Amino acid sequence: MITIYHLAQSQSDRVVWLMEELGLPYELEWFERGEDMLAPPEYCALHPMGTAPTIRDGDLVMAESTAIVQYIAHRYGDGRFTLAPDHPNYPDYLYWLMFNNNAQTSFLVNLAIQATGITAANENLAKTTQRRQEGLYKQLDARLGENPYLAGDEFTLCEIMAMTNLTALPAFGGRTIDDLPNAQRYIERVSQRPAYRKAMGIAGPTAPRPAP
Amino acid sequence: MITIYHLAQSQSDRVVWLMEELGLPYELEWFERGEDMLAPPEYCALHPMGTAPTIRDGDLVMAESTAIVQYIAHRYGDGRFTLAPDHPNYPDYLYWLMFNNNAQTSFLVNLAIQATGITAANENLAKTTQRRQEGLYKQLDARLGENPYLAGDEFTLCEIMAMTNLTALPAFGGRTIDDLPNAQRYIERVSQRPAYRKAMGIAGPTAPRPAP
Repeated sequence: MITIYHLAQSQSDRVVWLMEELGLPYELEWFERGEDMLAPPEYCALHPMGTAPTIRDGDLVMAESTAIVQYIAHRYGDGRFTLAPDHPNYPDYLYWLMFNNNAQTSFLVNLAIQATGITAANENLAKTTQRRQEGLYKQLDARLGENPYLAGDEFTLCEIMAMTNLTALPAFGGRTIDDLPNAQRYIERVSQRPAYRKAMGIAGPTAPRPAP
Repeated sequence: MITIYHLAQSQSDRVVWLMEELGLPYELEWFERGEDMLAPPEYCALHPMGTAPTIRDGDLVMAESTAIVQYIAHRYGDGRFTLAPDHPNYPDYLYWLMFNNNAQTSFLVNLAIQATGITAANENLAKTTQRRQEGLYKQLDARLGENPYLAGDEFTLCEIMAMTNLTALPAFGGRTIDDLPNAQRYIERVSQRPAYRKAMGIAGPTAPRPAP
């Protein structure tokens, strides 16, 4: 049985979502952020990186959700929601599976820059980060204008990875999708999935802390 | 035939390395950075993100090296240097394949913070980034004290992805590995591979620009 160490509110809700999509059992351990809004020491002690999500599977403790979702889908889900190397859309699948990491990098660098403003010392980094983020988000919107899902016709792990960036990051200073109509329709469509609704009710941004 | 759009000096040398390891033919198109040290407009025009590496394979133009190396190894390399889902070390493979993206995120956020110094506005981000980076690098050193390669006994794409961070980023303000003896021995060992030496001679940090 996989244990999901859930940091509320965080990206760890996507692992709950995947388990619900796959119909797999799991245990949820709930951690609240400290008064400084950071993960508490008990959470950071789970894994060397101290990041959410972190899961346990027997002796294995694993962080980094791009790795976690592939591990679960291939090891316990018969490869559901993944595309095989001979699938025509395999390169799209691999590329969009990395949207989260690319979007997060831009988000965090922008946060650091916004904290102090653009100066001569960080203007090159600000410029490349802005270019990269704008290119990526507009590419996403164009992609979703031509395909129902990021990898193409099928719902895949790319959705599991991308939704948090599109739905939750704007409240923390991340890029909004107000100018991206296809991304907006995509969120509406994907968020109607029963497993998504169930998972967000359990571990999403507004989910209540479970009774002890 | 795959075309590698090589931005000198950049992470795009890892795609050259992979092609040499697999013994696959490729074309290399060489781009120099501008006087501002950024990728030139011609490079940024290749792909929406404007990042290196970018490759072309027929009609497909692809960025994001974590995706690119898996695409090439699975589509053209019979899955060499990858681990299958039923391999005992599959979770290690997936996790360490993401070392590059995690290390790069910390590197870029730290660059942004170093440009202006730590203030009340960015101290939480500085703290979490430092914790994440230190945890990750020390986990890497511990891992390499017990295994010859990041995924375990076998050389995999994890090496192709990780080497740039360990060898080239310190010159740009990235974390050094002076205090990580196992990582130092790993670099020595991996950098003796004939394909690595050949690739670095063609596209590495000190490779000469090819004659036009």
